[in-house]
Amino acid sequence: MTATATQDPFIKNLCMFIRAQDMSGAWESMSDDDVLAPYILSKEQRREIPLFGDPDPDILWRVEQYFNAIAMAIENKTGRAIAPIMKIHHEGWGRMILTAGKLVAVNSYMRELHRFGFDSVEAMSAKAQKLIDEGVATIEKYPDVAAA
Amino acid sequence: MTATATQDPFIKNLCMFIRAQDMSGAWESMSDDDVLAPYILSKEQRREIPLFGDPDPDILWRVEQYFNAIAMAIENKTGRAIAPIMKIHHEGWGRMILTAGKLVAVNSYMRELHRFGFDSVEAMSAKAQKLIDEGVATIEKYPDVAAA
Repeated sequence: MTATATQDPFIKNLCMFIRAQDMSGAWESMSDDDVLAPYILSKEQRREIPLFGDPDPDILWRVEQYFNAIAMAIENKTGRAIAPIMKIHHEGWGRMILTAGKLVAVNSYMRELHRFGFDSVEAMSAKAQKLIDEGVATIEKYPDVAAA
Repeated sequence: MTATATQDPFIKNLCMFIRAQDMSGAWESMSDDDVLAPYILSKEQRREIPLFGDPDPDILWRVEQYFNAIAMAIENKTGRAIAPIMKIHHEGWGRMILTAGKLVAVNSYMRELHRFGFDSVEAMSAKAQKLIDEGVATIEKYPDVAAA
């Protein structure tokens, strides 16, 4: 991870959400890189993960933290409370929605969650930023619905 | 169930969704009353169901069919495709959202799902009708968001 990435508010949020669920205190001594390591998989590593069977529950937990961090970034930019709701079929595909009031700020379909991961912290942040921008733009387009 | 209730489009939809998942053909010979029977619990019956432990997965399945039938009624009235998304904590509380485009047409919080049930078919239909009316009114209020 580069120093730029650690200044990234999304990455900071994500580390915070992950660390908030440290049950044992073991992660306290871990660096942000270590904490984020399970999110980083090369294309080759992803391809090696078989798509049969159910994805590891830890993956679904990581997807939730990823969207929590996106939700928080949208909240911070718009001042609107964002509620995430995720429905994942046990076989590894599903839908994540971030709502603000009566507005669907972000709607994201996911598949092959067995292979959820990113080439690098920067790549993860860039993908998250797209969803953050989409959410912020949608709220700015329909402010009355987001406040409803 | 009264003859009035069987003419009720929500009740018809609900029976259709339930029957669509008949795996064995055993329900073919059942009346609509029999098919809907698990949804009907008296206040006393509900009170007797303990709230500890996880609710029966069959209950969550029934909740899903209930909201599918509500979604279909809203679709039929508005011509908008409705997507349901439900997130239930395993202890029996959660949130159900019905979206149309970028609009949250219905947002329903649920709790004590162990005791999910209604006094009568008419009472169930009346409660569903409230959510249907809410969904239709929301879509009529924000037609451009529902079409987005």
